[in-house]
Amino acid sequence: MSATQTNLPVDAQRIAEIVEGLARITEPDRPYTRRAFTPLFLEGRAFLEQCFKAAGLDTRMDAAGNLIGRRNGRKPALGTIMLGSHSDTVPEGGRFDGIAGVAAALEVARSLSDAGIELDHDLEIVDFLAEEVSIFGVSCVGSRGMAGLIPDGWLSRANDELTLRQGIVEAGGDPSRLPSSKRSDVKAFLELHIEQGPVLEAERLDIGVVTAISGITRIEIVVEGQADHAGTTPMGRRRDALVAASRLVLEIETLGFAHAAGEGHFTATVGEFEIEPNAANVVPSRARLLIDARAELRPQMEAFIAEIEALAVRITEETGVTITPPKMISDNHPTPGDALVLATLEAACGCVGARHRLMASGAGHDTAWMGRITKAAMIFIPCRDGRSHAPEEWAKNDDIALGAAALFEAVRRLDGQLQEKK
Amino acid sequence: MSATQTNLPVDAQRIAEIVEGLARITEPDRPYTRRAFTPLFLEGRAFLEQCFKAAGLDTRMDAAGNLIGRRNGRKPALGTIMLGSHSDTVPEGGRFDGIAGVAAALEVARSLSDAGIELDHDLEIVDFLAEEVSIFGVSCVGSRGMAGLIPDGWLSRANDELTLRQGIVEAGGDPSRLPSSKRSDVKAFLELHIEQGPVLEAERLDIGVVTAISGITRIEIVVEGQADHAGTTPMGRRRDALVAASRLVLEIETLGFAHAAGEGHFTATVGEFEIEPNAANVVPSRARLLIDARAELRPQMEAFIAEIEALAVRITEETGVTITPPKMISDNHPTPGDALVLATLEAACGCVGARHRLMASGAGHDTAWMGRITKAAMIFIPCRDGRSHAPEEWAKNDDIALGAAALFEAVRRLDGQLQEKK
Repeated sequence: MSATQTNLPVDAQRIAEIVEGLARITEPDRPYTRRAFTPLFLEGRAFLEQCFKAAGLDTRMDAAGNLIGRRNGRKPALGTIMLGSHSDTVPEGGRFDGIAGVAAALEVARSLSDAGIELDHDLEIVDFLAEEVSIFGVSCVGSRGMAGLIPDGWLSRANDELTLRQGIVEAGGDPSRLPSSKRSDVKAFLELHIEQGPVLEAERLDIGVVTAISGITRIEIVVEGQADHAGTTPMGRRRDALVAASRLVLEIETLGFAHAAGEGHFTATVGEFEIEPNAANVVPSRARLLIDARAELRPQMEAFIAEIEALAVRITEETGVTITPPKMISDNHPTPGDALVLATLEAACGCVGARHRLMASGAGHDTAWMGRITKAAMIFIPCRDGRSHAPEEWAKNDDIALGAAALFEAVRRLDGQLQEKK
Repeated sequence: MSATQTNLPVDAQRIAEIVEGLARITEPDRPYTRRAFTPLFLEGRAFLEQCFKAAGLDTRMDAAGNLIGRRNGRKPALGTIMLGSHSDTVPEGGRFDGIAGVAAALEVARSLSDAGIELDHDLEIVDFLAEEVSIFGVSCVGSRGMAGLIPDGWLSRANDELTLRQGIVEAGGDPSRLPSSKRSDVKAFLELHIEQGPVLEAERLDIGVVTAISGITRIEIVVEGQADHAGTTPMGRRRDALVAASRLVLEIETLGFAHAAGEGHFTATVGEFEIEPNAANVVPSRARLLIDARAELRPQMEAFIAEIEALAVRITEETGVTITPPKMISDNHPTPGDALVLATLEAACGCVGARHRLMASGAGHDTAWMGRITKAAMIFIPCRDGRSHAPEEWAKNDDIALGAAALFEAVRRLDGQLQEKK
């Protein structure tokens, strides 16, 4: 499988074994499902822990439930360079989202050892807990924990069976010592991830060096019309919430296109949309929209938010329904990649012969949280048709290996560049 | 309560007592709920049966579960004049939809007796079983049964607890003898009902003489797009099912307005609308719309259906989603009112001093089924703000009484006009 790239400093076959090993640990009836806080997730973690140990890593669980393998450096006082991603999936997800990054990170550690390369820094490989939206409705639990940014109250979140607090305990963490998971010794963090979009494949590039992780803003809009009899209420006497909401959807798409034509990455999506009473013979009385907007550049997002507020007023005036002021459900700012790490990653791409481009991430990632506490950046590798969060998600193993090789080179360079003591 | 209209041939107070008596028989936590095939419905039926008997009617249940009270005429060979409506409600419905018609019908029978008026025809008062969409997902069970038009297979329809066959048995019918409920002796059928729309109130009229019950056509449209990551998929590379479906909703409304501006009653409503996966961070991959279209004039409906088919093709071409050919879920033609009965009802309105207009019904009614087997027509009375199928549904008792008086006069006239033997 890796025969085509034997000149790389990493072993592609070993990466494939990790990816394939985890792919076998899935709900059999709906591949690939290995959600955080489920028995299958713990089974996957046990498999990874074995792999970490087999690679000679000093393996432990931190208080936030992150699985960490350490390779000691010559000058521990310099602190830690960390690589990693996550091994949990969404329901009916894919084999590569997250996992590719953990496998690539582990391969960097193994390859360094195989090559007899000692680093000055400690090197840590991490499998973050619950990057995807979990059974508790929240995401990036482990990386938030490592950044000391788990919000108050989250530990009490519960699903039908347990609380997040209990879930972290079952994952091997220790919520009572949560502050201990916050790190100040990490000097750089790198993550490899599949792009989850179509750009690299379309442009026949090997690696995307991620300049920023877009901010994500979620805005809820509720349209209140009037439930009337669909047969007896004349067309001109209606306050149809669905008709007004449909206008909103089209106007939001138009705004999304306008901002996407601008400088940075921008998307706007109405992903959740429900009407009431949703009955064949009743004029819809209520519609609820949830907008997911992503912007690489914060000023674009602020303009978009203002436009949405004005849009709600205008559609109210034009249609006679009542649109409540758009409600900000969440509003996370963009996270720029660290300039030094980005430059190092670009140089590493050149070194391993990877054709690369700079690009923003439209998706959220653990790197966004690690960027709060250290120099952090990530790279993307291509995935087929841009598909992700679906069973058909696919990345070529050689592409993962080339990305791992770039990480390998970047780690070596950063080890030399980051010589200031902690 | 009826003091203002003491010159009427009917007793408004007795009508109010029936309406109020049934209003008390409701699920206490969600007035006014008395769905067919529930214990509360049977309780309401027992109350009505008592009222029928107290009025001196010969009371029985037919095989389709219709409660029927008969007042014998002098020339039974002439057949039967029938009046009625239904006593079941939708969930959280109102106090007048259906019930007003049963109460008015019963009052006609009582008033005839009080006035010592003998008819040549037998007069029957009917409470049809399950006019509203029932727990079995179907409507007009009793009137379809009386018309001999319960579709094959309906009796086997089941909800969690029982089949329609069992439900009819519990209501006092006898499905094994269902064909016996089909009537050939009914010479005229009249129904009073609240308008369920805003027209009579807005025009300050007392009665609507219903020239036709609109045909109802339900058309399902499914839009297939592609589920993509909302953050990583550029705006220009999406096949967003919600965006395409929103265009459909607006175009359907435009078509509805265009037809409504034409000669007959016309409405078009998208009442059911769902998207998948309905997740904040996923571009919608699928949308399903159910159109409810109503036309007094069949050619308008046929034009509308053709326009919807063309629309689906056009939006598919313009947006890149796939829209399956619109699927006709049901397609019932309009039912014109009988000309003789309509003329008689108009004359009766004049006789009792009711300001009336001709109008179509946008809603379906038992009269549409009775029209298949006899001369049938109905009248509307005003309801407040056009509201119906809701707890705030309201009709003035004096308006019901004036309608009942028109029925009283119409029955007397029809009794003389329909002298051909059965």
